[in-house]
Amino acid sequence: MDSTTTPIELDLTMDPADLTAALVDVESVSDHEGPLADAVETALRQLPHLEVHRDGDSIVARTNLGRDERVLLAGHLDTVPLPTVEGSLGTVPSVRRRESERDVIYGRGTTDMKGGVAVQLALANALTDPNRDITFVFYDHEEVASDASGLGRLMRNSPELLEADFAVLLEPTNGTVEGGCNGTMRFRITTAGKAAHSGRAWIGENAIHKQADVLARLAAYEPRTITVEGLDYREGLNAIRVGGGVAGNVIPDSAWVDINFRFAPDKTLQQAQDHVREVFKGYELDFQDLSPAARPGLDRPAAAQFVAAVGQEPMPKYGWTDVARFSEAGVPAVNFGPGDALLAHTDDEHVFDDAVRECYRALAEWLA
Amino acid sequence: MDSTTTPIELDLTMDPADLTAALVDVESVSDHEGPLADAVETALRQLPHLEVHRDGDSIVARTNLGRDERVLLAGHLDTVPLPTVEGSLGTVPSVRRRESERDVIYGRGTTDMKGGVAVQLALANALTDPNRDITFVFYDHEEVASDASGLGRLMRNSPELLEADFAVLLEPTNGTVEGGCNGTMRFRITTAGKAAHSGRAWIGENAIHKQADVLARLAAYEPRTITVEGLDYREGLNAIRVGGGVAGNVIPDSAWVDINFRFAPDKTLQQAQDHVREVFKGYELDFQDLSPAARPGLDRPAAAQFVAAVGQEPMPKYGWTDVARFSEAGVPAVNFGPGDALLAHTDDEHVFDDAVRECYRALAEWLA
Repeated sequence: MDSTTTPIELDLTMDPADLTAALVDVESVSDHEGPLADAVETALRQLPHLEVHRDGDSIVARTNLGRDERVLLAGHLDTVPLPTVEGSLGTVPSVRRRESERDVIYGRGTTDMKGGVAVQLALANALTDPNRDITFVFYDHEEVASDASGLGRLMRNSPELLEADFAVLLEPTNGTVEGGCNGTMRFRITTAGKAAHSGRAWIGENAIHKQADVLARLAAYEPRTITVEGLDYREGLNAIRVGGGVAGNVIPDSAWVDINFRFAPDKTLQQAQDHVREVFKGYELDFQDLSPAARPGLDRPAAAQFVAAVGQEPMPKYGWTDVARFSEAGVPAVNFGPGDALLAHTDDEHVFDDAVRECYRALAEWLA
Repeated sequence: MDSTTTPIELDLTMDPADLTAALVDVESVSDHEGPLADAVETALRQLPHLEVHRDGDSIVARTNLGRDERVLLAGHLDTVPLPTVEGSLGTVPSVRRRESERDVIYGRGTTDMKGGVAVQLALANALTDPNRDITFVFYDHEEVASDASGLGRLMRNSPELLEADFAVLLEPTNGTVEGGCNGTMRFRITTAGKAAHSGRAWIGENAIHKQADVLARLAAYEPRTITVEGLDYREGLNAIRVGGGVAGNVIPDSAWVDINFRFAPDKTLQQAQDHVREVFKGYELDFQDLSPAARPGLDRPAAAQFVAAVGQEPMPKYGWTDVARFSEAGVPAVNFGPGDALLAHTDDEHVFDDAVRECYRALAEWLA
């Protein structure tokens, strides 16, 4: 790093869409969040109503007004790498355009999730006297391996800083509230046989044939849709990989299938494991990956008022997101942010100016 | 190759066990059959009752006595590579030992199949006036890819030289007659689905789950035992490899299973294909390898007399061998040779002296 680099200054009084473009212009691919984290910290420290903490490249800023409720607004500072295809617009710096009568910002992170971070920063500046205490969390390393997550690190180092009654993660949801998330686990079922030359198959025992029953249970399984706090979570039980066999003339002595179970937040990890153990009774399940589900928390008063402020029917979240970390920590959480999640990580990542402004408006109305 | 290399001289009047050891001492791993083929050709050309032909490193020697029947005795000159484990006895040169009151020869090719070749050469020398015309075939490249086979080349180049009423392949059978062989084929059944993120499995279609029915048919299949000319051929239908899947979070859009069918010589290739098409009705079968079965030919008079001379109950051959090439060419063929086939290709390959002599005795009695 050049020691003469001028620190980046962020003007939090800007229109949230303009602020989004300014944030995109500070490249922050995972592992390079430093300059952006510095700029965010510097800007927040100028706000006297906030108490600011830093941990690595994560920043926590809190009001301490003694309100009855505390809500937490969280977003990550990092992005996936810049596109490698020449001419891609989803890169750095940002590009402002007008398309079909709408203003749009192209650039890496516009959707995932500097639009959301811009909303957080604009709210941090504007809400000097909010109706609830607010904790703003900006974290690093969300786009890489789960155990590198800055949010996970904050939860381990300073859990007290993240205590809240309700959390909103400003991941892109196209402006709707997506509550909780399904849990996910992977496990392997291995069948054993006895190798033999395939010309004398009766001496052996075919491990692949024994997978017939495992696959039949999968094919016959009827995945359920489970309603939790008014949201419908669709479950799924699927083989994702299968393998077995040694050579063209050998009866295989081993075969395996890897299975993924996506389960609704009515179940703990343990209950989900019990369920698949029941489905595959008689087999040993080798669990390889276990992520709990998250309840939407829409039964909390803060959440209900939030949903009312947004004014749209909440939806269930199917994919696993950091809301599950909050849920595990006892804080119900939802996703709510500007931009289309399907554009995340694409070469033409973009967000509409008015989507960022609308997200800001909804949160400001709820918290003002 | 050193141009001063002394040509190797073989004394065909030797005891067949001693001749076996002498043949083993001329290393002839596939692709290096030249020196041994030269020695065999030179020795045979000294016998006035034989007409000798050479094609590459294959040699055909024939009597032309105008007998009613002609039998063919065939063996390959090449061996698999020498063992790499230090101290292995199944190498070059040969080692003679006495174990449990029996004389034994260790060395690469003792079993597969220089013991058989020694018997052929000793018979070629001794049978100056056989009761049937005899064609001796010594060929190269048996231990490598099927299309490199010297026997296949001879059949293409000079089919007239290989015409016979009955053929004996001196592959190791522990001195019993193994008749014909099962056919073998491989085919793939691919199931197609529709890829989707595993968090939204209902949008996709799981190709692995569709293999459940294919594997169930395999698991339920009852392989038959079919009697052909008095020999019982056990069939087999087996998955040998299975695969499918893209990533840990993707519903797989393709899965496949490779299946091996070993079928008795009551069926042509076409009939065998029709059978598996019937078993897997509704699926497309992608055939990858097709080798026909061979009938044992034990209904021919020459064969019946041969079996009587050997004095043992003939057995079916399960593995695919070059007898199938003869069968395809219209010449019924059996395997009959000294040594245990299970020792072939092992690091301690060996053959008992008396097994070589007994094989010689049986053939000499039949043909003298």
